[in-house]
Amino acid sequence: MYHFRNDYSVGCHPAVLEALAAVNQESVIGYGQDDYCKKSADLIRELCHAPQASVEFMIGGTQANFTAIAAFLRPWESVISPVSGHINGHESGAVEATGHKIIPVHTPINGKLSPTLIRPVLQECEDTHLTKPRLVYISNATETGGVYTKAELTELSLFCRRHGLILFLDGARFGCALTSKVNDMTPADIAELTDAFYIGGTKNGAMMGEALVITDPALQGEFFRMKKQRGAVLAKGWLLGVQFYALLKDGLYFKIARNAVEVAQYLQGGLKNLGIPMMVDSPTNQIFPIVPNTLLPHLDELCSYEVWGKADDDHTVIRLVTSFATPLASADGLLKAIKDLT
Amino acid sequence: MYHFRNDYSVGCHPAVLEALAAVNQESVIGYGQDDYCKKSADLIRELCHAPQASVEFMIGGTQANFTAIAAFLRPWESVISPVSGHINGHESGAVEATGHKIIPVHTPINGKLSPTLIRPVLQECEDTHLTKPRLVYISNATETGGVYTKAELTELSLFCRRHGLILFLDGARFGCALTSKVNDMTPADIAELTDAFYIGGTKNGAMMGEALVITDPALQGEFFRMKKQRGAVLAKGWLLGVQFYALLKDGLYFKIARNAVEVAQYLQGGLKNLGIPMMVDSPTNQIFPIVPNTLLPHLDELCSYEVWGKADDDHTVIRLVTSFATPLASADGLLKAIKDLT
Amino acid sequence: MYHFRNDYSVGCHPAVLEALAAVNQESVIGYGQDDYCKKSADLIRELCHAPQASVEFMIGGTQANFTAIAAFLRPWESVISPVSGHINGHESGAVEATGHKIIPVHTPINGKLSPTLIRPVLQECEDTHLTKPRLVYISNATETGGVYTKAELTELSLFCRRHGLILFLDGARFGCALTSKVNDMTPADIAELTDAFYIGGTKNGAMMGEALVITDPALQGEFFRMKKQRGAVLAKGWLLGVQFYALLKDGLYFKIARNAVEVAQYLQGGLKNLGIPMMVDSPTNQIFPIVPNTLLPHLDELCSYEVWGKADDDHTVIRLVTSFATPLASADGLLKAIKDLT
Amino acid sequence: MYHFRNDYSVGCHPAVLEALAAVNQESVIGYGQDDYCKKSADLIRELCHAPQASVEFMIGGTQANFTAIAAFLRPWESVISPVSGHINGHESGAVEATGHKIIPVHTPINGKLSPTLIRPVLQECEDTHLTKPRLVYISNATETGGVYTKAELTELSLFCRRHGLILFLDGARFGCALTSKVNDMTPADIAELTDAFYIGGTKNGAMMGEALVITDPALQGEFFRMKKQRGAVLAKGWLLGVQFYALLKDGLYFKIARNAVEVAQYLQGGLKNLGIPMMVDSPTNQIFPIVPNTLLPHLDELCSYEVWGKADDDHTVIRLVTSFATPLASADGLLKAIKDLT
Repeated sequence: MYHFRNDYSVGCHPAVLEALAAVNQESVIGYGQDDYCKKSADLIRELCHAPQASVEFMIGGTQANFTAIAAFLRPWESVISPVSGHINGHESGAVEATGHKIIPVHTPINGKLSPTLIRPVLQECEDTHLTKPRLVYISNATETGGVYTKAELTELSLFCRRHGLILFLDGARFGCALTSKVNDMTPADIAELTDAFYIGGTKNGAMMGEALVITDPALQGEFFRMKKQRGAVLAKGWLLGVQFYALLKDGLYFKIARNAVEVAQYLQGGLKNLGIPMMVDSPTNQIFPIVPNTLLPHLDELCSYEVWGKADDDHTVIRLVTSFATPLASADGLLKAIKDLT
Repeated sequence: MYHFRNDYSVGCHPAVLEALAAVNQESVIGYGQDDYCKKSADLIRELCHAPQASVEFMIGGTQANFTAIAAFLRPWESVISPVSGHINGHESGAVEATGHKIIPVHTPINGKLSPTLIRPVLQECEDTHLTKPRLVYISNATETGGVYTKAELTELSLFCRRHGLILFLDGARFGCALTSKVNDMTPADIAELTDAFYIGGTKNGAMMGEALVITDPALQGEFFRMKKQRGAVLAKGWLLGVQFYALLKDGLYFKIARNAVEVAQYLQGGLKNLGIPMMVDSPTNQIFPIVPNTLLPHLDELCSYEVWGKADDDHTVIRLVTSFATPLASADGLLKAIKDLT
Repeated sequence: MYHFRNDYSVGCHPAVLEALAAVNQESVIGYGQDDYCKKSADLIRELCHAPQASVEFMIGGTQANFTAIAAFLRPWESVISPVSGHINGHESGAVEATGHKIIPVHTPINGKLSPTLIRPVLQECEDTHLTKPRLVYISNATETGGVYTKAELTELSLFCRRHGLILFLDGARFGCALTSKVNDMTPADIAELTDAFYIGGTKNGAMMGEALVITDPALQGEFFRMKKQRGAVLAKGWLLGVQFYALLKDGLYFKIARNAVEVAQYLQGGLKNLGIPMMVDSPTNQIFPIVPNTLLPHLDELCSYEVWGKADDDHTVIRLVTSFATPLASADGLLKAIKDLT
Repeated sequence: MYHFRNDYSVGCHPAVLEALAAVNQESVIGYGQDDYCKKSADLIRELCHAPQASVEFMIGGTQANFTAIAAFLRPWESVISPVSGHINGHESGAVEATGHKIIPVHTPINGKLSPTLIRPVLQECEDTHLTKPRLVYISNATETGGVYTKAELTELSLFCRRHGLILFLDGARFGCALTSKVNDMTPADIAELTDAFYIGGTKNGAMMGEALVITDPALQGEFFRMKKQRGAVLAKGWLLGVQFYALLKDGLYFKIARNAVEVAQYLQGGLKNLGIPMMVDSPTNQIFPIVPNTLLPHLDELCSYEVWGKADDDHTVIRLVTSFATPLASADGLLKAIKDLT
């Protein structure tokens, strides 16, 4: 059985476990005020060429999203998000539970936003009987594997700054975005072009944890009280600092993300060669083959995967995901098995 | 340097780390839908003689408190809490951020609530211009080490049921409460007498995690969506199930809690023998000596501790806390060093 | 200048003003606990054949919407609304500010919901990472003048009951809906088929006020505390009771609504005769002519109206609204003036 | 039967009713964008010597309080209020429902706050596990008739500015405060010393309505969207502008407030002469006699009043309130009747 269900179905990278074990007996100050978090935050500021940034270690993506958004916005302000944005469809109304409307915007299938798509929302919301859009939420990579180019993110960033919009980037799959072939950005580029973003740990080598980077100093104030209020302060906060330090201190984070991307790309290429088309051409660790329904029972025995949706009466879009821990052999094995079937 | 600052300043018990390491490479289903969580929940239901209970693994205490309270209450309903309750004073307004008022009630120094203290609040709130008190929040042990007896909790429980109040018990220090000398309750007693409570992992052997037990079926509905909304669903949810299983499967949880209590009690006895009085006679792992201010600079070099407050112009109340990892030798060492000083 | 901008641009019906003046010097008990509110509520229960219903006088539509919705829902529950629903587009995020997501559903241009449109939302939301849809929000009449037939509302009602959905009807334009030609329902039908709805006063003869009727007893509990919390309890609550009594005691409410509808229908017919098509064929007091852009400067001098949107490069949809106070002569005058122009 | 139950049990001053009747047939632009509101706001800015202030007409006190407070604060910020503050005890958790904690502070029986009382709260809240106190809520007059002197308000104002605290003054009884004998402030003084306050209409001559004056420009932004979101935008917004204009254009507001105060003071003096002591010496339109319990059945027949609380086993504190509409003859009548009884 090959595992392609998602990128959070194994524990952490062995180096991370080792790092956690190494400090396990130490007495450390709580609530993220420790030296591991400090060192890790310094490392991230350096990596992002953003000495002014604050780095906040959060436990998970949903928590990072709603805590940041609620901290940044005033009550009458709203969020512009792709319809496919994780906050819009998969977080059980977490942003709305903090009191803010999400304005969903239809995008191309790659899930990417652009000024052209946002402009009509701004125009409509000039009517003061509506909320004031104030934050643009994007993901890199998107839910369908879309990766922003530097040109695209620059255009979006300039547009947001001109219109007083906060640009917030969900980086749950930051590693795979930045190691995909179409990427032409560094972490420093992301930091420069956004007002806040996060470096996802959960889906790339950590047990849990996202490193939220708030690059705009105007958005940083009293964030500790906010985190505490939203359950985002881990008593043993160093657990997060230790993990990010292990992942980032010598580039392990990007090395393992690259593995995930390469295996997925190998699998995508192989499937195409077998005549299986893709819903979208994804350059990341998530791929979306359109398979004949008759293949599904066989796939059920071969591998774990998720059904993404119906393509037509006879075909289904499935999602295959690789992670830092997926060996190339799994892709190979699956390809061979499918070839044998067809 | 002896460590008495708090009970969450070291990692997890070695057996817990081992259990985590053992499953680290496995592919496990996410979001707490896995077998480890299931087994762990079954174990807890058994331990509590509560087959009807639902068990929800939460990441931390603040999160467990506000998620449960917000799930249980309607918008116009409020919480009765001791002034010293953790939700009232140390969670940055987390409960109010979910929209609910906390009505603070003054208690004796042990922090325990009783029907006598609650009754006047109910009378005042018959006025419908006020909120409707609907949940009574207590902690066992309390913030000052108070432990409820079975008679006390039974009286409170009967009172709450008669008045339609949900009784919610914060069990961040559940282990130390149940292993203290004054305790006469089993987990099953707690489960029977409350509507919901949690078994604290963070402060007793786990890396992180609290096992929320909702014994009243009427309060259980759709809790997964609620957890997801509040950032309480860990993608790698099995991390919590694995830890609680390791702690509970053979009584390790109570064994290590007992150690914490015994070391603290030894220290408390020793300090009294040295003529140092206590702010309150605590039977748990937290003790509150009243020390001369002149002793503080010496203590600063001897051990970590927290200043609890001013006793009078010349004396300070400090808090010393032990944990599962505190050796008796630390207590001994500190006692000897203080004796030498005085 | 003819006034067709909206149906809330004049004060109240003279009979309402007279009723208010008549009690102005009386000493009356506050907060809606008075006899005027009681009599008025009794009258409404009678009108609706709903002796079990509670009647809550609210100050305005937005307040009625968010207070009722927030009172009815649990935190993880959401609202299904037409994209064009007032709560979705014109209330500045009021529902989301109470913590609940609105799931917008595209409808035909008449703005009406049906089981066919709701079913896919329910299917998608079986995934517990999403909110639980729990309330269906409809308006009668809709924002584009749509009026539900008894068959339609019955189908929707049965569907909602089968799926545990609360059916909530925004009746800001209740009077015009029930006096339109396509209507085949009585207030009692509405009461029977919905779980809560309101009889709009602001847009039909009152100074302000909506009479919220909660027909499902399970939804009524502690609503006074809820209203108080949301600013919906008027100190001089009798002001609302007095107005509704004046409007409803002898059918004035429906008589004046009928006037609004008739004038609008006369105007719609006249415009069509002049070759001006409609965006939608509205049977109520709001009509939506598609006029050549060249006509707009002339209209600006003739009457007040609202621009609804662009039809094509050369045409604009405008909205003309009549009220209880619009004389037929205004419609006649406008028609003649337009005829002269064209 | 004499009416002393409260100051909102009769309609509006006849001049206000007349003003409303005068515009009743006019077609006016909605949502408070009309000329009546504009003129009224200009008048208030002039009265307050505050050309930079924004004036927002709200429907009632609870709404004014929670809308302003929620608009001014960030999520982690809290409100310091006297225990007796209306927001703390009589608004059904309205402020908490917007997500903010109220920190209750014990005051002298007159209900007035001072820097001495606030300072310890600030010190305690330096701990970032607590909320950040950001707004000081006071009432003038207080719930027990306390009136701030200019010296007191100046001291409080300077303290707030030094500590970055917003000073918000609930002016539900603004008229009676400013016409009481102990008052030495003008509306301009209040405007200068606070960041926001309101001029209460409901309790002094209006049907309903409070004029919220936001003197600090930094707090004014996007308030219309906020009001709309909280149900505070009346469709027929001019109803509020018209009323305030009628009350303020020639000083009627203060003239009728003075009447209320004088009658109450006359009554207070008379009762004292009859040997009835007061719970607190109130200089406003609310007085608090301590009456023997044996007198209560007689009072029940003589007048309406409210029981404030128990003084001792044999005595009860009652509250007698006058309004703009209370004739001196009522006070005289009550005094004579009591004299006859005793």
